[in-house]
Amino acid sequence: MSKLTVEEAKQFRVGPDFQLADVDPTATPDVSDVDDVFHDYDDDLDDLQRRLFANSRVGNDNAGSVLLVLQGMDTSGKGGIIRHVIGETMDLQGVHVKAFGRPTEEEASHDFLWRFYEHLPEPGQISVFDRSHYEDVLVQRVKQMAPPEEIERRYGAIVEFENEIAARGTKIIKVMPHISRDFQAQNLKERIERADKHWKYNAGDIEDRKLWSQFMAAYQIALTRTSTDVAPWYCIPSDNKKYCRSVIKALLFDALDSLDLEWPEPDFDPEVELERLANS
Amino acid sequence: MSKLTVEEAKQFRVGPDFQLADVDPTATPDVSDVDDVFHDYDDDLDDLQRRLFANSRVGNDNAGSVLLVLQGMDTSGKGGIIRHVIGETMDLQGVHVKAFGRPTEEEASHDFLWRFYEHLPEPGQISVFDRSHYEDVLVQRVKQMAPPEEIERRYGAIVEFENEIAARGTKIIKVMPHISRDFQAQNLKERIERADKHWKYNAGDIEDRKLWSQFMAAYQIALTRTSTDVAPWYCIPSDNKKYCRSVIKALLFDALDSLDLEWPEPDFDPEVELERLANS
Repeated sequence: MSKLTVEEAKQFRVGPDFQLADVDPTATPDVSDVDDVFHDYDDDLDDLQRRLFANSRVGNDNAGSVLLVLQGMDTSGKGGIIRHVIGETMDLQGVHVKAFGRPTEEEASHDFLWRFYEHLPEPGQISVFDRSHYEDVLVQRVKQMAPPEEIERRYGAIVEFENEIAARGTKIIKVMPHISRDFQAQNLKERIERADKHWKYNAGDIEDRKLWSQFMAAYQIALTRTSTDVAPWYCIPSDNKKYCRSVIKALLFDALDSLDLEWPEPDFDPEVELERLANS
Repeated sequence: MSKLTVEEAKQFRVGPDFQLADVDPTATPDVSDVDDVFHDYDDDLDDLQRRLFANSRVGNDNAGSVLLVLQGMDTSGKGGIIRHVIGETMDLQGVHVKAFGRPTEEEASHDFLWRFYEHLPEPGQISVFDRSHYEDVLVQRVKQMAPPEEIERRYGAIVEFENEIAARGTKIIKVMPHISRDFQAQNLKERIERADKHWKYNAGDIEDRKLWSQFMAAYQIALTRTSTDVAPWYCIPSDNKKYCRSVIKALLFDALDSLDLEWPEPDFDPEVELERLANS
């Protein structure tokens, strides 16, 4: 029973030669039974996030923070990642989850990045974006909801935006949970048939599905042009949901670990306080 | 192995004859081994909160919501309740946790209730207050941080505030996790001695501890005067943390169950959509 290593998780990092078409959504490289590795990082994530949160509570503005961006096709498992990776290993007091839908009228009247600022993590926090500013170069590109030159401008604007976030001490992890078109059909079928899943189904999902190859082309461009050292993309095979979640745990572990978090030093003298306590 | 029933949980409800001094913080009535009952409601809470969240996602403004107020002495286990009751059974996308510290300068310049409004639950949401508007009649009373007539005014203002929240369809549960003074000493000792708990310790905690009986008197008054049908208080023995958490699970189950949540009706014809899917 071998651990899924950080290096193995990083094989999914999008580099300059990345070809989305070469990623097999059904693969589970380096893992024979995903149940063997799924909990590898749970204790570490718990410990590291407590440290991060503790630092924020004592007002350490240099504690650092983490931004996890989840951007994938319908039914690719974004909600499950939030629930099973974040919810089950971390203290929700230090976590901010934001799902981004269609922009409101006010939001649409500002630059496309405007609405994301207020959801960036504070020092000591972890923010999770369920969909993100990438909608503005994915669905908006595919459905021509903005002029080509505006779409073109956005790639650069996103890179600048993310550089700015990283410069504040935020570790950025961007994940595309990559599923096959067949797996999506299976998932949509469940949403149509099951009463407890109806609410997740949208008639418009079928329209998007018909544009699958256009979406894949838009992802190919977006991922390649915006995967940077400070804000890398990971395109993770996700027909096996638990595999994807295991990889994300390893990536989160690596990001938190790189913050080098110590427990905050006490701002009191333990001997003195024990004495005060004894006399209280 | 018998369940901890909702009726048993409700024995801790604060009524007109409530005497805080009569509540034994070390007791665990109706439960011999708390591990037997701790997970009784997990599946129900998971199911009900999913329904609540699903309703909010389809824009059902009548979905209802829940507000859990946690107000207790230092080390009474508020953080653990949030982590182990809320975090472990619910989807954090539908949960909003807010810890209230000392008011900021801006907050202090408004009426004491002002800062709480923006953290009330939206339809479909569960909000948890870690400390609350009761600080304004507890610590502020004990330490005479406001004139007596202002403190006096606040009890009525709180009841009105909570009536207003309830009228919006929010189920309110107010919990005082009640610990003994001895148990607090033990907990504070840990915070002073353990590096991973230092950040939770505050030299001021000892000052509050010296005012224990004044605090208990303030709780007695606050709980008695503000426990109403729509916003009842529960004073739960909490030297056994898991016992308190088990009782809260039963109370949350009851609140969610009383919302009578159905899965949202589909806004589509399943037959038609399966056909569209097959042709996509």
